[in-house]
Amino acid sequence: MHALILTADGPAAVTDHPEPAVPHGEALIQLRLGGVCATDLELVKGYMGFTGVLGHEWVGEVLHAPNAALVGKRVVGDINAACGACETCLAGRPHHCPTRTVLGIDGRDGAFAERLALPMTNLSLVPDSVSDEAAVFVEPLAAACEILQQVHVRPTDRVVVIGAGRLGQLCARVLALTGAQVDVLSRGASRLALLPAGIGQHALEINPEAAQQLVGADLVVECSGSADGLVTATTLVRPAGTIVMKTTVHNPEAVTPIPWVINEIRLIGSRCGPFEPALRLLASGAVDPTPLITAQFSLREGVTALQAAAQPAHTKVVLTP
Amino acid sequence: MHALILTADGPAAVTDHPEPAVPHGEALIQLRLGGVCATDLELVKGYMGFTGVLGHEWVGEVLHAPNAALVGKRVVGDINAACGACETCLAGRPHHCPTRTVLGIDGRDGAFAERLALPMTNLSLVPDSVSDEAAVFVEPLAAACEILQQVHVRPTDRVVVIGAGRLGQLCARVLALTGAQVDVLSRGASRLALLPAGIGQHALEINPEAAQQLVGADLVVECSGSADGLVTATTLVRPAGTIVMKTTVHNPEAVTPIPWVINEIRLIGSRCGPFEPALRLLASGAVDPTPLITAQFSLREGVTALQAAAQPAHTKVVLTP
Repeated sequence: MHALILTADGPAAVTDHPEPAVPHGEALIQLRLGGVCATDLELVKGYMGFTGVLGHEWVGEVLHAPNAALVGKRVVGDINAACGACETCLAGRPHHCPTRTVLGIDGRDGAFAERLALPMTNLSLVPDSVSDEAAVFVEPLAAACEILQQVHVRPTDRVVVIGAGRLGQLCARVLALTGAQVDVLSRGASRLALLPAGIGQHALEINPEAAQQLVGADLVVECSGSADGLVTATTLVRPAGTIVMKTTVHNPEAVTPIPWVINEIRLIGSRCGPFEPALRLLASGAVDPTPLITAQFSLREGVTALQAAAQPAHTKVVLTP
Repeated sequence: MHALILTADGPAAVTDHPEPAVPHGEALIQLRLGGVCATDLELVKGYMGFTGVLGHEWVGEVLHAPNAALVGKRVVGDINAACGACETCLAGRPHHCPTRTVLGIDGRDGAFAERLALPMTNLSLVPDSVSDEAAVFVEPLAAACEILQQVHVRPTDRVVVIGAGRLGQLCARVLALTGAQVDVLSRGASRLALLPAGIGQHALEINPEAAQQLVGADLVVECSGSADGLVTATTLVRPAGTIVMKTTVHNPEAVTPIPWVINEIRLIGSRCGPFEPALRLLASGAVDPTPLITAQFSLREGVTALQAAAQPAHTKVVLTP
């Protein structure tokens, strides 16, 4: 089958790849739509030292599964495949299982292929009312929901999201549902225009003073994908406020903790989140991510798709099989 | 009067210093006992660029006060002098008032002098049952209590305190009162011996594998006072666990946030805390810090006292007027 793969030596390439092995308890899934994420672009640069099939944002159709009732159904799936038996899993933290594999990121072939395999327990059914174009956002939308799992955001809070890219867009939408005032700070103005009404838009290329005007936020969500994002977040958060760290870049700028101690800042690393709330927000229409899709390519054009996703002109680039 | 002061050019010195100005609303206090803190030693190295009278750990007797009932009473005092009127103060965060002065640290002469001044609202009466030798620890003990203001420590948690120095000793004592298992990790063994029974002692000079054996802690409190303390804390905390950052060193090692994001670590800067709970813990005897006093000097020997406090052989060095 065709797959977009990373090897130890050489750039990402579309090749003929063996069909996925389907171990006991796993389902074989036909890709319907894949989404390119900033993490994919970091993996291409060497982050995590990953080799294999890329891709962890996807919606597909079950071809084979231990539970036959799933066959033919549209599904999305949690990308962390945990052991389910260790101390960490039994403590309710399977996303942190020390022996986990992560779809298209760590030790497990990903979704940018005609077919993929995942444990059946990782899968969630996609309601008929949720299109493939919306469902392909469930994984990053779950990562946005993870912020609300970790932090109590209050309706009277002032929230700043740094970055208007793929993840920043989703975080801003989810955070605005709390009733909090949400402002998005970005270098450029073009992606800001994709934000729904009611979310503040602040482009440094238009207003170089934009960051100073947002100082004192109760919560800063750092989704810039930039090496210096955490430094900016530190200048924006109020004393005793909270910074949520979403950016994983291959070479982040090193930071000094002194202002965090003096100002008693709380910082929270935030990664993958719960799929079911994300599906509910799509099914209810509370979040509509589909305007974020700016280009569609076929899997065979996967390398071109990655190049497009790296351009500021694009937000979400999707791949069809 | 005699005072231990820092000037812009030159080392700390004991000089004849003008009597403190006592603005409206402030009390004039006669020093009874002062305590040397790691922060004092960092200030001497240039931290905060402070000049003036050093010292922020103290117990004294009120000489003059707007409330005459205080005169002659033993008091301790919150070191943050806030405006009480700004948005931050009105939000209940006077410790973070942007125009605050901080006794012996920022914009306000400190306690290593015969007399000092502080706003009357900052003062707390010391119960008769609490000795001067215990009361001089209220300020750092309040900073230890601040951890429990910020983090819900559960009796089943496993806690590691990095550093067996002045603040680490107090943090370990307060945290052990929750019923949690508390282990203290230190380079040397000598200060560990000062810990009360029931708190784990782990010296790297005796067991180089000590850190590896403590990996997976629910909470790591970083009190090392070392530039690399936060790096060690990151290796010890479990996924989705918490690091409390107490160390303010003049030149901390820069850190990379990637492991915090991947492992969803929560980091919390922690500085000054509430005085009343600290006084209750001293009055009840739940915490007895007095064995930590390893040397006493007079104010005139202040420079020698600072030098002694920098030696690993000493834990708390106190100053009499």
